[in-house]
Amino acid sequence: MKTNMIRAGIVGLSGYTGLAVLEILLKHPQVRLTYISAHTTQGPVGEIWPQLAGRTDLTCEIFDVKKAIDQCEVIFLAVPHTSSIDITPPLLQAGKTVIDLSGDYRLKNAASYEKWYGHKHTDAKNLKSAVYGLPELYREKIKGAKLLSNPGCYPTAAILGILPTATSMTEEIASIIIDAKSGVSGAGKKTSPNLMFCEVNDNFKAYKVLTHQHSPEIESYLNQAAGKDLTLTFTAHLLPINKGILETIYIQLNKKTTAEKVHSLYSKFYKNEPFVRVRKLGAQPELKDVVDTNFCDLGIAVNEAGNLIIVTSVIDNLIKGAAGQAVQNFNIMNGFKETEGLL
Amino acid sequence: MKTNMIRAGIVGLSGYTGLAVLEILLKHPQVRLTYISAHTTQGPVGEIWPQLAGRTDLTCEIFDVKKAIDQCEVIFLAVPHTSSIDITPPLLQAGKTVIDLSGDYRLKNAASYEKWYGHKHTDAKNLKSAVYGLPELYREKIKGAKLLSNPGCYPTAAILGILPTATSMTEEIASIIIDAKSGVSGAGKKTSPNLMFCEVNDNFKAYKVLTHQHSPEIESYLNQAAGKDLTLTFTAHLLPINKGILETIYIQLNKKTTAEKVHSLYSKFYKNEPFVRVRKLGAQPELKDVVDTNFCDLGIAVNEAGNLIIVTSVIDNLIKGAAGQAVQNFNIMNGFKETEGLL
Amino acid sequence: MKTNMIRAGIVGLSGYTGLAVLEILLKHPQVRLTYISAHTTQGPVGEIWPQLAGRTDLTCEIFDVKKAIDQCEVIFLAVPHTSSIDITPPLLQAGKTVIDLSGDYRLKNAASYEKWYGHKHTDAKNLKSAVYGLPELYREKIKGAKLLSNPGCYPTAAILGILPTATSMTEEIASIIIDAKSGVSGAGKKTSPNLMFCEVNDNFKAYKVLTHQHSPEIESYLNQAAGKDLTLTFTAHLLPINKGILETIYIQLNKKTTAEKVHSLYSKFYKNEPFVRVRKLGAQPELKDVVDTNFCDLGIAVNEAGNLIIVTSVIDNLIKGAAGQAVQNFNIMNGFKETEGLL
Amino acid sequence: MKTNMIRAGIVGLSGYTGLAVLEILLKHPQVRLTYISAHTTQGPVGEIWPQLAGRTDLTCEIFDVKKAIDQCEVIFLAVPHTSSIDITPPLLQAGKTVIDLSGDYRLKNAASYEKWYGHKHTDAKNLKSAVYGLPELYREKIKGAKLLSNPGCYPTAAILGILPTATSMTEEIASIIIDAKSGVSGAGKKTSPNLMFCEVNDNFKAYKVLTHQHSPEIESYLNQAAGKDLTLTFTAHLLPINKGILETIYIQLNKKTTAEKVHSLYSKFYKNEPFVRVRKLGAQPELKDVVDTNFCDLGIAVNEAGNLIIVTSVIDNLIKGAAGQAVQNFNIMNGFKETEGLL
Repeated sequence: MKTNMIRAGIVGLSGYTGLAVLEILLKHPQVRLTYISAHTTQGPVGEIWPQLAGRTDLTCEIFDVKKAIDQCEVIFLAVPHTSSIDITPPLLQAGKTVIDLSGDYRLKNAASYEKWYGHKHTDAKNLKSAVYGLPELYREKIKGAKLLSNPGCYPTAAILGILPTATSMTEEIASIIIDAKSGVSGAGKKTSPNLMFCEVNDNFKAYKVLTHQHSPEIESYLNQAAGKDLTLTFTAHLLPINKGILETIYIQLNKKTTAEKVHSLYSKFYKNEPFVRVRKLGAQPELKDVVDTNFCDLGIAVNEAGNLIIVTSVIDNLIKGAAGQAVQNFNIMNGFKETEGLL
Repeated sequence: MKTNMIRAGIVGLSGYTGLAVLEILLKHPQVRLTYISAHTTQGPVGEIWPQLAGRTDLTCEIFDVKKAIDQCEVIFLAVPHTSSIDITPPLLQAGKTVIDLSGDYRLKNAASYEKWYGHKHTDAKNLKSAVYGLPELYREKIKGAKLLSNPGCYPTAAILGILPTATSMTEEIASIIIDAKSGVSGAGKKTSPNLMFCEVNDNFKAYKVLTHQHSPEIESYLNQAAGKDLTLTFTAHLLPINKGILETIYIQLNKKTTAEKVHSLYSKFYKNEPFVRVRKLGAQPELKDVVDTNFCDLGIAVNEAGNLIIVTSVIDNLIKGAAGQAVQNFNIMNGFKETEGLL
Repeated sequence: MKTNMIRAGIVGLSGYTGLAVLEILLKHPQVRLTYISAHTTQGPVGEIWPQLAGRTDLTCEIFDVKKAIDQCEVIFLAVPHTSSIDITPPLLQAGKTVIDLSGDYRLKNAASYEKWYGHKHTDAKNLKSAVYGLPELYREKIKGAKLLSNPGCYPTAAILGILPTATSMTEEIASIIIDAKSGVSGAGKKTSPNLMFCEVNDNFKAYKVLTHQHSPEIESYLNQAAGKDLTLTFTAHLLPINKGILETIYIQLNKKTTAEKVHSLYSKFYKNEPFVRVRKLGAQPELKDVVDTNFCDLGIAVNEAGNLIIVTSVIDNLIKGAAGQAVQNFNIMNGFKETEGLL
Repeated sequence: MKTNMIRAGIVGLSGYTGLAVLEILLKHPQVRLTYISAHTTQGPVGEIWPQLAGRTDLTCEIFDVKKAIDQCEVIFLAVPHTSSIDITPPLLQAGKTVIDLSGDYRLKNAASYEKWYGHKHTDAKNLKSAVYGLPELYREKIKGAKLLSNPGCYPTAAILGILPTATSMTEEIASIIIDAKSGVSGAGKKTSPNLMFCEVNDNFKAYKVLTHQHSPEIESYLNQAAGKDLTLTFTAHLLPINKGILETIYIQLNKKTTAEKVHSLYSKFYKNEPFVRVRKLGAQPELKDVVDTNFCDLGIAVNEAGNLIIVTSVIDNLIKGAAGQAVQNFNIMNGFKETEGLL
């Protein structure tokens, strides 16, 4: 039976994202994990991460491109930004499928990448062919992808919250404000003074105001979907919780609409999506409805006097905003049931 | 020496606000607390609230209007909305000064009060003469007030964040969005299923979207300051923390401006205010900078391409948003140093 | 295929425990959920609990004993203490299997039940035949149980932490102290003033000192395992978190031992247990290692100078301490793989 | 007026303790802060710590022993362990008074210091003359101290919880177990991977089991008070909160006693202490009763069947466990009212 399963590997187990991919794939009925590696920690998985003791015999190694090629058909890259650019080309050249969870292949414009990530992009060829893995937007393209660029967490919640409006009410949109709030795991597992417990607990703040690298990602994919340049402002805030993103999205229209119309638009748009749920009018999604799941839940309200749509969009930043969406893409790419391993 | 001190009373000790007034007044050098009462708890203060044991000999009683009149010159009302309307008239008639921390005398329009608070307003006379206690806006009026209506927590942060723009850039404002996030004590000390620990912890959500009773309060005082009707949208969210409000305020302009200009406007506007601090450009205020203090801290950013001002405003909802501001008003009304008991 | 699956029902969905059973059974490959009921909420599951929308078509009903009998082979009771006594007899009489997660059938002595739970026990017959569902202690008995009494959360962590010592070092034990700390969900989903967010957050306290109803449960099963009366003291504390129990257990001996000996004893004792993991000497288990899993992790230390064993025992109070253990028992009772649906 | 005030300095502002001393001294009516320094941050206080903007004009400098001597009469050392040994001698030699909040002068035995702190103690002379600043134990000695060694946070709560028993029931004590739980600020403001928000939040664990450096401190002062060697075991745990320590102390007796007797002993022992409050029988102290205050609250229970006293002791680790107690000592040393600046 095992011979039919996909042999998958994960590179970058030291971070929260890599570990989240591991947790999902361990239970995925179509996957045999054959290779895992991390830069900072090596050894039996159960000794490094006690929560996994007794659940797997895998051993975490230093990354070795040859081993990865030998042992896997699909490789999930959960490495820091800029590392994927180095690792991806040889894997693709060896005919492997790459699902990259870093930001390296998200911005199609190399100059934009350099501006927002502070590094030159040296893999123009693959940057062009990479498919942006938001199933609700690019499901067909994803089916044939060899290099899948998995969306950022903020962009996932933002684009799903805006997409129906951007595509169906394009000309009526005057401007969009995304007021985003994220749990701390969104910042990755880095040892930074301002991510220490006493600095974050009982606290709340905006950060990277007008300078967040997810801003151009949101903009470029929404502009493409809308077929025109939208006026977008994105503000990130740090919530004193581990997991979860809530974005309150204000879409300013230049003409009247009603709550019913907008709600109906969103409901129809996502009717067949397995992982997007639109709440009924008057209800608001909460983080706890989606944390530890691959769902994105949306709430709709309209300030009719002000021609203003208010969409609230919630996801688990590590699941639908990273590892879960990566597996959703993996399922699509392999012709599996899209919810396999995710429900 | 004690004879020069103001004899003050607090009505409504069962809630967070009343207790916060008590904590401040116990240390206020010009105040002698002579009367305290609560609806749900009576007895020696140190037995009801162990944290106050050994710090005061006061006894908490059932409210008795005659006793309050006999024993106090100034009465702080920290009772639930609609109770102040009953208690205030006899106190004023007896020549006492009333500082009301409820919402009962904030909305000058009785019809608006009925709409948003769900009760008829039966004290039109005092509603008219009540002074709205935001020192930064009405310091002169406050000096002579007999009935001081202390602002709501959300409105305090919102109005202070918008006031310089509303008064100096009035014609340039197209619309304003206030995305507000509050700690749980802002909801008062009520036993509600959705305020239980397990429901709030690790969670985050928007609530009362487009229906929050602080919305008309913000609107009416800003409209008055601006001299015109502004287009305002207010959204409240519940943070998994006890204390603190952060509001991210988006002021959409209809013409260009720069971050420097706006920052300079705010800095000058609040230059002499003892409790408003404007951060330098590029810096963002955090809740922990103001929690347990009477300060309101403001951060300024401008998305110049989008003609959008982003003001972040933080306060402690129980201090500058309630008890501290009440004492600041008390100081102004009595000619004391405005910071007395608050620094 | 579905015809081979066990038809199972859950009574008492309004609490945290019932919902946790539901979450596990929805993914259990051998179970078809055919009936769910709750006292306080009825309707489609996805409307009552938005997190379950799109994952099940079940409808929650008012409990009806006939329906439960008609539609299920096994019924999980997640009702409040004292309710199980009423519901269980007719279900057993109809030949159904009952897995009771309440405390009603845990204390074999009816007088003890009355003392600690404050109610007369009116089902002496079934009380006698009920099997206490701690697999590590009673696996063989569980196989044939018709009424399974699922252990309390504190007792699960305590008994697993003490069992090897109680059975193998019986005569050397002078006394045992269990210092237990639990997350808030352990208190159930009740709306109590002292479980409100602001009362629990940033706080910590001991509660029900020397009067906790889990104390006699721990005592009776350990005494039985030891074959003598142990001197036990149990103290509960409330952690400002949702899920998880850590118990620091001090076993005072009357003669010398070493850390290595005790560690070796525990390691051997639990060698074949799928859900108990003993950390290597020097390592300590943390809540995050077991939360959301059915594992109990144990840490061992010995103060050799004081003849004192220190065992730290951690579980998720809703999983190994309730719903997960119930399903583990269900698996044993039905001859399924013990880890089915739990890994 | 200012000429009568004590000129005080603080060395080591980068940590939580130094900042807590600063916060208290800023409001102390008998203190003029004349010098503050920190290793890692220099500049105007209001720019480094925004929460202090508008409250002081002080500038934080690199430590310069000459400046400290020139500008201060009393110097508070809030530096890391081992640094105080270098700084203290020249200050004392210049006739200054030193209040040391580090662990450097707490263990009278230099060998013990070396064992537990990992460094040789090079100031034997002052180690001998240093006075351990627990007012409830050494008030008279403190009055004449030139070098005051401020107690550790865990030892403060532990010794206060055990002292009445250790001195009045000495011969009846068989052994003592201290199960201690602390908020994260107790670990100091260091950037450590296991103190990051996501590692501590929603988590709980024991740490440094049997190896904590506060263990010998507790032991030596209690042994001295008891006049004999007690058998003590101390276990520390990390609470997911910023501030506060609760210790559950189990005092095993070798003969019977009653709750009333023990409660009466404690009540009398602390009757005149301004900062120790004994709860009435049946009540338990909570962290929130003492956080942000200099109080230590004690709860008493007795398991009469097991001859076991259970004392719960709570303090704010940064106040009574550090900065507040330092100022309490400062008040005693200077003949001020002991509660000055602390109530």
